[in-house]
Amino acid sequence: MAEPLFGRLALIGIGLIGSSIARAARANGLAGEIVVQTRRSETLERARELGLGDVYTTDMAEAARGADLVIASVPVGASDAVAQAIAPVLKPGATVSDVGSVKTSVVRQMASLLPEGVHFVPAHPIAGTEYSGPDAGFAELFRNRWCILTPLEDADPEAVDRLSAFWQGLGARVERMSPEHHDLVLAITSHIPHLIAYNIVGTAADMEDSLRSEVIKFSASGFRDFTRIAASDPVMWRDIFLHNKDAVLEMLGRFTEDLTALQRAIRRGDGDTLFEHFSRTREIRRGIVEQGQDTAEPDFGRVRTQG
Amino acid sequence: MAEPLFGRLALIGIGLIGSSIARAARANGLAGEIVVQTRRSETLERARELGLGDVYTTDMAEAARGADLVIASVPVGASDAVAQAIAPVLKPGATVSDVGSVKTSVVRQMASLLPEGVHFVPAHPIAGTEYSGPDAGFAELFRNRWCILTPLEDADPEAVDRLSAFWQGLGARVERMSPEHHDLVLAITSHIPHLIAYNIVGTAADMEDSLRSEVIKFSASGFRDFTRIAASDPVMWRDIFLHNKDAVLEMLGRFTEDLTALQRAIRRGDGDTLFEHFSRTREIRRGIVEQGQDTAEPDFGRVRTQG
Repeated sequence: MAEPLFGRLALIGIGLIGSSIARAARANGLAGEIVVQTRRSETLERARELGLGDVYTTDMAEAARGADLVIASVPVGASDAVAQAIAPVLKPGATVSDVGSVKTSVVRQMASLLPEGVHFVPAHPIAGTEYSGPDAGFAELFRNRWCILTPLEDADPEAVDRLSAFWQGLGARVERMSPEHHDLVLAITSHIPHLIAYNIVGTAADMEDSLRSEVIKFSASGFRDFTRIAASDPVMWRDIFLHNKDAVLEMLGRFTEDLTALQRAIRRGDGDTLFEHFSRTREIRRGIVEQGQDTAEPDFGRVRTQG
Repeated sequence: MAEPLFGRLALIGIGLIGSSIARAARANGLAGEIVVQTRRSETLERARELGLGDVYTTDMAEAARGADLVIASVPVGASDAVAQAIAPVLKPGATVSDVGSVKTSVVRQMASLLPEGVHFVPAHPIAGTEYSGPDAGFAELFRNRWCILTPLEDADPEAVDRLSAFWQGLGARVERMSPEHHDLVLAITSHIPHLIAYNIVGTAADMEDSLRSEVIKFSASGFRDFTRIAASDPVMWRDIFLHNKDAVLEMLGRFTEDLTALQRAIRRGDGDTLFEHFSRTREIRRGIVEQGQDTAEPDFGRVRTQG
């Protein structure tokens, strides 16, 4: 097998994403040695039981010492704490990256704390499930998924290429863009959809008792599709909204204006407006399936016997 | 095999739902003879190729003549036209039913047009996929799904029991409620979720060119879950919103009030409110999976290689 891309890979955080990187890096021979760090010892023990790494520690600096690549997979609000802890021990030429769902804030939190000579290349793999923790990860999570890199303007091209090759080795396709553009795109493709799902599930949960149990019972009529992403990690998502406020409020404004227009069409009995809108949106689904970003299986291929 | 529940079953409409009823009724021996009706001859030919029935006609009256059970599977706005066409030929003691996603309007359209001595028992099977037409149906569609019956106050108990047994024979669990209560429950479990999905996909589709292609590309970050139900049949859904206006506007009002509260929390950087809300909604997902109304498979079990 070829020489691993990185001799020593340090994973700060070993949840769904961190543990998937661990498994995939191992499976694909991308790192010589894998160091696993997480704050809680129970989680660290579990990671050890799962054999996710070669070295285990609850200490961030200890994990980052001597590492060639450090990846932080933590709630984005914790980014500055990570940078603070690892900055003193990073070896020259090391690459520091992350997987956060917002990028401008991560850059703002980390860039100025990291030393000269260290390559800071923020990243965001567009992949995940609604589950959390080291047991939830799996090696194929990133296969055929996009990973966005948002290198800073003065980034070392070789370091960016090497991190790009790492993510390609994990099965992802890599795209580069500015942190600001990333945050705008993800506001509409991810943050607003999650906010909307969280909201509608909350609205249903607040129904009068007589209605609430029926909401669950009859959820196969559409509602259940929303409940999946509304089961996503609350800490991760709290931080995303706190750290991408401007783009989220901008997209939310557009969403609300459009919803009000549909509301008006319903109130007025304007069937033509509704029909035109609903026909237009059918095409978007086709595009997504054609680009391999979702299955053509009816109902997401949910197992028939379970429904 | 036991005597079929209904000697002659007439299916008015042979789309996803009608064709699934045809397949399931046949597979479970629930009808002696199945008559298939649809307006367009191309669709009728396709139904014939698929072997969905025993008799085929484009004429609603011809289909309903001599039928013991007539099920209309048509956009809810067409309910009165169906009642008008079949009323003159229905035999005494026949049961007339439907599968519409709204019930008060269907009752209002049909009840007064149907003759005395005919049992009108409206129904709504909570099942479907985003696909349409006779090819889209399958016999297991209703298995483990709920079917709601909304019999009128003067309904004949035996007729309601017999239709209930029919739906149970198709694999469904049956629940009874008033048409008004049905419309309120379905507004929140189905109609608002679909409206929200249609809206967000429309908002994304209206993005500036530079953003629009990226929306599809990076749709696996949450957006794609919404696009499935936003690919649902535009005629069916136009009619649902036109015919359940009051309940939809009521639920939409609640949704919007709650969304504004979340927007305010984001604007104010109120992480506690966000965290509390997101933690609450995780429980709803658990309830749905526990009640067998969705799969526990991560990401709906979408095939890994496709992602």
